[in-house]
Amino acid sequence: MSAFPSALSPTLQLAFDLISRRSVTPEDVGCQELMMQRLQAIGFQLFPLRFGEVDNFWAVRGNEGPILAFAGHTDVVPTGAETNWQSAPFAPEIRDGHLYGRGAADMKGSLAAMVVACERFVAQHPDHTGRIAFLITSDEEGPAVNGTVKVVEWLEERQEKIRWCVVGEPSSTTLVGDVIKNGRRGSLGAELIVKGIQGHVAYPHLADNPIHRVAPALAQLSSEVWDEGNRFFPATSFQISNIQGGTGATNVIPGDVTVLFNFRFSTEVTETILRERTEQILKQHGLTYEIHWALSGQPFITGEGELVNATVEAIRAVTGRTAELSTSGGTSDGRFIAPTGAQLVELGPLNATIHKVDENVLASDLDTLTDIYENLMQRLLAGAR
Amino acid sequence: MSAFPSALSPTLQLAFDLISRRSVTPEDVGCQELMMQRLQAIGFQLFPLRFGEVDNFWAVRGNEGPILAFAGHTDVVPTGAETNWQSAPFAPEIRDGHLYGRGAADMKGSLAAMVVACERFVAQHPDHTGRIAFLITSDEEGPAVNGTVKVVEWLEERQEKIRWCVVGEPSSTTLVGDVIKNGRRGSLGAELIVKGIQGHVAYPHLADNPIHRVAPALAQLSSEVWDEGNRFFPATSFQISNIQGGTGATNVIPGDVTVLFNFRFSTEVTETILRERTEQILKQHGLTYEIHWALSGQPFITGEGELVNATVEAIRAVTGRTAELSTSGGTSDGRFIAPTGAQLVELGPLNATIHKVDENVLASDLDTLTDIYENLMQRLLAGAR
Repeated sequence: MSAFPSALSPTLQLAFDLISRRSVTPEDVGCQELMMQRLQAIGFQLFPLRFGEVDNFWAVRGNEGPILAFAGHTDVVPTGAETNWQSAPFAPEIRDGHLYGRGAADMKGSLAAMVVACERFVAQHPDHTGRIAFLITSDEEGPAVNGTVKVVEWLEERQEKIRWCVVGEPSSTTLVGDVIKNGRRGSLGAELIVKGIQGHVAYPHLADNPIHRVAPALAQLSSEVWDEGNRFFPATSFQISNIQGGTGATNVIPGDVTVLFNFRFSTEVTETILRERTEQILKQHGLTYEIHWALSGQPFITGEGELVNATVEAIRAVTGRTAELSTSGGTSDGRFIAPTGAQLVELGPLNATIHKVDENVLASDLDTLTDIYENLMQRLLAGAR
Repeated sequence: MSAFPSALSPTLQLAFDLISRRSVTPEDVGCQELMMQRLQAIGFQLFPLRFGEVDNFWAVRGNEGPILAFAGHTDVVPTGAETNWQSAPFAPEIRDGHLYGRGAADMKGSLAAMVVACERFVAQHPDHTGRIAFLITSDEEGPAVNGTVKVVEWLEERQEKIRWCVVGEPSSTTLVGDVIKNGRRGSLGAELIVKGIQGHVAYPHLADNPIHRVAPALAQLSSEVWDEGNRFFPATSFQISNIQGGTGATNVIPGDVTVLFNFRFSTEVTETILRERTEQILKQHGLTYEIHWALSGQPFITGEGELVNATVEAIRAVTGRTAELSTSGGTSDGRFIAPTGAQLVELGPLNATIHKVDENVLASDLDTLTDIYENLMQRLLAGAR
């Protein structure tokens, strides 16, 4: 183990160790082994689960009763050119009270906080009710086909049900715990290929320009109101990410144009409704087309209830603040866990610098987070109020 | 010189020789040398003019009086995979009365017809009035910056004015001489870059999708009526040839989108009018953009008059048909010659197979064309009616 500054809290020391490991998806570089050793030492049963080139583990403490699972990932996104960073991305350091390094916010800080929170809770409540669990993967940022989704399938086969799940993704905006995610929008993508007839620009009557045909359809799709959202979700959003048509030659009308777009959708619509409305618009514009749909995830939501309430109270008890419930932003591995029926929240540090150069968190935020996780366990597994 | 079938007419023999030379732009492979030898033998003065890697020549017979110039090019477009051709593109052959080979239609057949027509005319009328000239280049199909445009500059510097110009581009549709071009539309191109703000698909309020912004503007541009055309020109036409926006990632809103488009315009509008109307539409749609305009050529037209009338009469005398005047289709080197004040027509074989695999012409059409060119010279330079 590296010699990390011993004046730091246990959470920060563990965060330094994890961040120093170059675990770019799907590499784990011993992060999970480190976590598992710590958890085994306080009585967790370990189940390492490797699928393909992805490392995962399930760990559980206790024999019966509802499971509170902490979930997250040890993999991080690439750094880009390391020379763009002020300090090396895998050489964590604290400057001006901020912990810098790839994964500090997303999400090795949270992993450290979870482990240390468990160590403290178990020391205080060795006979807690229920069970504590960890569901950890080394591929959340990548294709994510051999990570959490496979662990959940394994759990379902064993009929092991998670009651409450806390995902450590960085949920906060300005102050740690100011925002928790209690759900995520669905994500539905499509590849649209509009067909025309290739020809010479000077002979348009012998051709059929697919770019001309698709433009008004895209104008309509991009201004369409899909729904108004609801109590938990912002309005469903449509965004075109890519468009390509043309041979490169300036005197050729191309034979087709390809458009890639994506819906982030609320529970006010379904995948089927979006597909039907989209294709109706394409047909209204008289397009000849092929379309390939790909659902990345269904929306999911956890309303007020045991987990949401306990999380909000834990944040209030530690920080004095009332957390806001949100479903905005991208997606998370929660989309694989929620369909099992688990209540699920995402709670982590500030997300302002995730995936960027000089990723960092306020170092003290990780200690605050540790306190919040511990307080949450006290409420759910030790009868605290 | 290759051993071409001697049973063929002089025009077809010369066409065989020219077609057998692999003169893909800007290569000439001795085509012009061959033509110049034939012309010199009947009293033409020769001026080979090489600019950059392009061969050109000007040749003139006679000392005074109005110039009738034959214009054209020895270069041909690439063949694509030669295995796609029924017979090798540079091994001309006659099958079912058709002469096959790259350049048969565009435009080595015409070059052969011009030369042989001159040989016959000069033999009959060695003391014709006026002057006959040839303006030939080896780059019409390519960038065309060192071809005809440079020869015209050279002529202007010498204050040498062409009165009547016959361009041998393949103008005909169904029967040789059924259509002649008495002008061409202008061609104005643009590269439009619409700016937005790059961001994550899940955070559209932090981004500004340039594809969404440009779609309604393109819908309007592609349905806009620019003018109604006039007696000589079809309505101005707008076509988008290329569009590209996006990073490839499906969760990223791109920061910009690039669109390439082209106007083929009539004398009812000007370059300035089209630019102003286009930019007004872009501004009405609130776009932030850069646009780079490139004028490829101004429109030009030759109304009824000496040349048009003589050409129509020559076609009627040889084929019995009345030629239609047209300005449709692409562009030609006539755009460099017409601004000098020359009357200009384009007359050549059928254009159905130009730039395609198995390019061909009806072999007898080249003999008909030779007769038409000769008849035209009789009318303009020997007082025939």
